Order: sequence, then C-alpha cells, then structure tokens
Amino acid sequence: MQTELSKRLGVEHAIFGFTPFPAVAAAISRAGGFGVLGAVRYTAPDDLKRDLDWVEAHVDGKPYGLDVVMPAKKVEGVSEADVEAMIPDGHRQFVQDTLAKYGVPELAEGEASGWRITGWMEQVARGQLDVAFDYPIKLLANALGSPPADVVARAHEQNALVAALAGSARHAVKHKEGGIDIVVAQGYEAGGHTGEIASMVLTPEVVDAVDPLPVLAAGGIGSGQQAAAALALGAQGVWLGSLWLTCTEADVSSPAVTRKLLAAGSGDTVRSRALTGKPARQLRTEWTDAWDDPAGPGTLPMPLQGLLVAEALTRIQKYEVEPLLGTPVGQIVGRMTSERSVQAVFDDLTRGFEEAVDRINRIAGRSGT
Amino acid sequence: MQTELSKRLGVEHAIFGFTPFPAVAAAISRAGGFGVLGAVRYTAPDDLKRDLDWVEAHVDGKPYGLDVVMPAKKVEGVSEADVEAMIPDGHRQFVQDTLAKYGVPELAEGEASGWRITGWMEQVARGQLDVAFDYPIKLLANALGSPPADVVARAHEQNALVAALAGSARHAVKHKEGGIDIVVAQGYEAGGHTGEIASMVLTPEVVDAVDPLPVLAAGGIGSGQQAAAALALGAQGVWLGSLWLTCTEADVSSPAVTRKLLAAGSGDTVRSRALTGKPARQLRTEWTDAWDDPAGPGTLPMPLQGLLVAEALTRIQKYEVEPLLGTPVGQIVGRMTSERSVQAVFDDLTRGFEEAVDRINRIAGRSGT
Ligand SMILES: Cc1cc2nc3c(=O)[nH]c(=O)nc-3n(C[C@H](O)[C@H](O)[C@H](O)COP(=O)(O)O)c2cc1C
Ligand SMILES: Cc1cc2nc3c(=O)[nH]c(=O)nc-3n(C[C@H](O)[C@H](O)[C@H](O)COP(=O)(O)O)c2cc1C
Repeated sequence: MQTELSKRLGVEHAIFGFTPFPAVAAAISRAGGFGVLGAVRYTAPDDLKRDLDWVEAHVDGKPYGLDVVMPAKKVEGVSEADVEAMIPDGHRQFVQDTLAKYGVPELAEGEASGWRITGWMEQVARGQLDVAFDYPIKLLANALGSPPADVVARAHEQNALVAALAGSARHAVKHKEGGIDIVVAQGYEAGGHTGEIASMVLTPEVVDAVDPLPVLAAGGIGSGQQAAAALALGAQGVWLGSLWLTCTEADVSSPAVTRKLLAAGSGDTVRSRALTGKPARQLRTEWTDAWDDPAGPGTLPMPLQGLLVAEALTRIQKYEVEPLLGTPVGQIVGRMTSERSVQAVFDDLTRGFEEAVDRINRIAGRSGT
Repeated sequence: MQTELSKRLGVEHAIFGFTPFPAVAAAISRAGGFGVLGAVRYTAPDDLKRDLDWVEAHVDGKPYGLDVVMPAKKVEGVSEADVEAMIPDGHRQFVQDTLAKYGVPELAEGEASGWRITGWMEQVARGQLDVAFDYPIKLLANALGSPPADVVARAHEQNALVAALAGSARHAVKHKEGGIDIVVAQGYEAGGHTGEIASMVLTPEVVDAVDPLPVLAAGGIGSGQQAAAALALGAQGVWLGSLWLTCTEADVSSPAVTRKLLAAGSGDTVRSRALTGKPARQLRTEWTDAWDDPAGPGTLPMPLQGLLVAEALTRIQKYEVEPLLGTPVGQIVGRMTSERSVQAVFDDLTRGFEEAVDRINRIAGRSGT
C-alpha cells in the first residue's frame, strides 16, 4: 500500500495511526506504518520527554510523528483559575448530583485529576513542541485548526511535514492557506472531535479542495477493505485512531473500558459535547445521556466543559463506575471485537486491502493481476 | 462494473437508481443501469399505471424495478380522518403561524394538497402492487421494514427479486429472515429516511451480517470513485437516489428547488423529523429549523407529522417560498453542481470507476491492468 506520501515519508504502508500510547505508536511504525503519538495528555514536558525517549528506543529507526492540540485562537493571559471562575454553580451541582446518584467515591486527599485543561492551551502545546523538536519527528499534526505560521516554519526547518485535521472542505482550504503539507479529512463516523460530513462524501471533497496537497482519510477505517475504499476516494493514505484502542499494546484507562469497547456495536457511540464542550464521538453512556438530556443543564462551551468534568471523569475511571465509564471512539468500534497485537491488526489490514483490490479488479473485468 | 447481481439482473453496470420520476428511471435502465421507480407519491392506481406504461414504452426492453413504502406494522381500520383527529391544535397553530410569518398564500378553493398520508399505508401499497405486477418488473424494493411474506412470495412467482432498505446490521438480518433477496444498506449520509451509521462502517457490517445475500451500498455516492469505494467495501452494486434530482430528465417540484440543490454544499443538509416524523435527510431550510428548534412544539411521530404538514408543503412549493422550500437529499448534494442528462451522469460514473481502479492498482503495486 504505497502512495507518493508514504514513499516520501519512507514507510512501507500508507497507514497512519494516531494513538495516545507510546507502545502503540512505536509498534505501528515497526509494523511498516506511521505511528503518531498524541501529546494532549502530557501536561508535564518531562513526561513527554520520557515517552519520546521510549518511542525512540523502540521504533527500530522507523519514522514517527507527534500530534498536538493547538487551538487556532490564542487565549493570552488567561489562567486555569480564570476559566474555573466562569463555570456556573448549577453545572457544578449537576456534576455532584450525577456522581452521587451513582455512588461514585471521592478521590483521596491530594490525589490529582488526571486530565487538565492546560493541555488544550497554546502555551502548553508550545512547551510540548520544545521537547518534541529534540527528536527526529517526521510529522507534526494539529487537531484544532491550522498551527501558527512560526510553528509550521520550525517544523519545516526540522524536516518534519505538518498535517492538520479537517471536518469540512472549507477548513481544509484554510489549512492549505496556512502552509501545511497534509490534510487529514476526518469524517462524521470518527472517534474524537468530529464534524457532520461522512467520510464517503468528505474524502473526495477535501481531495479536490486542497489539490495537489495529499489527503489522509480518517473516520470509520478498521479493515483493509475500508482502507481500499478510502484510497479509491483519492486519499494518499488512511489515518486510524479507534482501532488501536483494543490492541494489546494499548494502555487504556481501565479493563472495564476495554470490556465496553469489545462489547459495543457501531450504534453504541454518540457525538456529544459532554467531554470537552465541542462535539466528539465517544461511547454512549449514562454520563453522556445525562449531559445530552434536554431536562439537564446542558454542556458548557470548550474549554469550560472539560475543566468542569475533569475530576468527575478521573473518579469514574478510577472506581470503574461502569454505567458512566466511556472513552472517545468511532463507529468502527463495532468491528473491535478482540484484543490483538498491533502487528496482527496490520497483517489483517494489508491482507484485507489485497482482497479488496482483487475484488475491484474482478468487478472491473480486469484479469491481469 | 459487473457483479454477480448485475449479471443476474442482466444489466451492464451494477448501478441502481432510485427515483420518483419515470423519465429518470427509464433513462437509468437505458444507460445500462437499473432504474427503480418510487411509488410512494402515486395515491391513485391509474396514475401509476399511466407512468409504468410510459416506462415500459421508453426502456428499450431493459429491466427496471419498483419501490414501495410498505410499513412493517399493519394499521388496520384506521382512516385518514382518524389520524387527523390525533393532531394537537397547538401543532396546527404552529404550522399556520409559520406560514403566516413568511406570507405563504393559501391554495385556491378545492385545490388538493399534493401529498397524502395514504401512500404510506399498506392498503395503498398493495393497490400499487396490484398494478405493478401487470408489468415485467424485475425488482421490488421496500423502504420501511421487510415486506409481508405474501408480497415476497408473489414477487418471486413473478420472477422479481425483493430488496429492502436497512440502516443497521440488525435491520438487515431481519430482512434476511423475512426471505428477501437483496439488502440496500443505506448510510447516514443518504437522502431520505436514514439511520446514524455512515456508509463506510455500515456497508461491510451489513455485507457480513447477511452473507451470502447481495448488498447494495446507498448513501453518499455520486462519482465512480465513490462507487469503487462501495464495491471495495463488499457491496455488489451501488444504489443512488440524490444524484438524479438534478438530471435534466427529473421533474422536481419547482425550478427554485433545482436552484437550491445546485447551490447547496455537503453541509447544507439536515437529518430532521420535520417531513414525516422519522429522521430523513433533506435540505436544511428555515422550515426544518422551525421544527427542530427546541423553542417550538417539535415534530409529531409518523404518520401524524406528514399529514400535519402536507398542505403547508404544497403551498410552499406552489408559491416557491424560497426560505422554506426543501427536498429530501443527501450530503452528496455538494457535488450536484450542474444539470446533466442521466447518460452524462452515467458516463461520468463509469469513467470515474475505471480511474479509481487504475489508482488502486498503482497503490497496490499491480501493473498488469
Ligand atoms: C481515544 C481517541 C483520542 C483522540 N484524540 C485526538 C487528539 O488528541 N488529537 C487528534 O488530532 N485527534 C484525536 N483523535 C482523532 C484521531 O486522530 C482520528 O482522526 C480518528 O480516531 C479517526 O477515526 P477512527 O476513530 O474512526 O479511526 C482521537 C481519537 C480517539 C479514538
Ligand atoms: C428525493 C428522495 C426521495 C426518496 N424517497 C424514497 C422512497 O420513497 N423509498 C425508498 O426506498 N427510498 C427513498 N429514498 C432513498 C433512496 O432510495 C436512496 O436510498 C438514497 O437516496 C441513497 O443515498 P443518496 O441520496 O446519497 O444517493 C429517497 C431519496 C431521495 C433523495
């Protein structure tokens, strides 16, 4: 599975894997794909340094990348305390009432919430980049909007390509104008923050809109057949996020989350603002139902919602409160029915791709294959 | 573009076209695809007879089919008046207020609303079948649920295959159990009544769930690249509905609708209950916004909503009240940017398909093509 872009990056298969887990990122690159480590959960630069050291040591010299969450709009001089102060009491009460209803225990004194707003702030993302550019990363991806011009320039100086996620052709064109090299067209069915246009429609629309920039198709891909479909739509590769969550190398927050992922069908996700304040696809749970219920107070805008629920989510995860326990994941979760190694997933992807190519050639009446 | 199913039906390309317009259905079959005429708008059997005569005379002996809307649940002894009586006054008032706000004129006295609930009732669909089985239809499709066993048996006696639309693997399996021959897996991005699972995920899921039944992929297909993608996903053909609406042969309700379709982008549709009471993808308009507004009375369940808005929609169409004027259509509307003949659309589909096959072979490193 070779495209111009995979050749340019020196990887065997045009399969890109986003993952928050260093062991998964390294395994994807070792298997002949391109592993991209998600940085948003690293609030302390030293933790990122430690994990990049680990990736560097386990990647067998293969290329890999980093994904940061750098908001397009800069918020200057605003502290976490300022943001805290903007959260209405009624919303705080709703969090407490919901946790109480399910008997979710408190954290021990001094125990920190695992997730902080700060990972979403430009200062923090810049700190991550200061660390990351000490490593030979070959791709820098940005989740929210185009990265600032100086960041693009710095990446290019370091011989890294820059990618940005887009859920519409309009956003993709903005990214192109911002000087980036690759657009990740992320469809409605994807896990995480996502728009309303499905991959079948979005991929070719973005390909045409940013031509000649290469496009990676993201959203709903979990088999070689789906990879073949995305490539038929004009993508230069596929970008998968959900599928790795049930890999043996993944370090998901709790075994209960893995159980829920393995059991979920394609209809068991919801695009909800409950997690961050922007629509993100995730497992549908009684927690997302509570936030999406018109009878409740509703969600707050980003970044307030994320800050509001951070401690609650840590408690729900720590105590494995199953009805409330969720994770971002896409509709492909219906196909994630067993725990497998990254290598086994890769073998399956490449075999399925070849089968799809055979099939398409038969349908086209072409025999010389 | 030949699959087992297209061979079985004796068509050159595995491209199926749903359309409410006889001239489009006939043109699709003449172009080497399989035209399927939608029957829901024929409340008078004689009108259907007239149009099937026309199709028969213009199809050059090529095969074609009929699509009926036969609800899975039988409602016996309920008249239109009974259903009328179930509509709350507040909802009627909301319709009148909204029409008044936009200054929509009344119909002339005695002028009928174009759309009646009765097309959705089993008795009416059975009347349509009594007419249709006098013609050599090769496919009978059903939009809502599996057709009753006696209808399936009758179609088979007449050498017609039976297809049913499904938005989830669970529904598809029910159809299979109901003895049908073909499942149309219709994704979230499709025009008309549709579920939440996008085609990229739904198609292979349904293919596996109903194996060895053939599956047609519907939703989001408007190019040969998208057809190739759907076939890579395991479909035995593609089923398109939206794309024909801007064909020169189509007889859409008004030139203003065509203008709106040509101007709309992929983000200009909405999955709303405003039309029938069940979620259906359509152009987003100030009319759908009014019904989807939490401040309004909200929509009624099927079939009440359809009955409630029938006269209003006729008035909006007749007087071309642009802000309120809509039509069912899918996200592929973004690609419908010019009026073309069905034959030109077909040429584009088959050329795009060949290009996608070339592309996929290059990516797979196969040269013998
Ligand atoms: C658990 C999870 C976390 C994610 N976090 C991020 C993120 O921090 N940054 C980002 O660019 N994309 C993130 N995404 C989106 C992925 O990059 C990718 O676009 C998406 O998962 C592709 O669709 P799929 O889930 O159907 O494979 C996340 C996805 C998942 C499933
Ligand atoms: C204007 C319009 C009317 C439709 N009416 C029906 C119908 O009466 N019966 C039916 O089975 N499907 C109906 N559909 C759905 C189509 O059969 C088809 O599944 C769908 O259009 C495919 O997705 P696409 O719109 O992206 O091509 C309709 C679609 C459109 C656009």
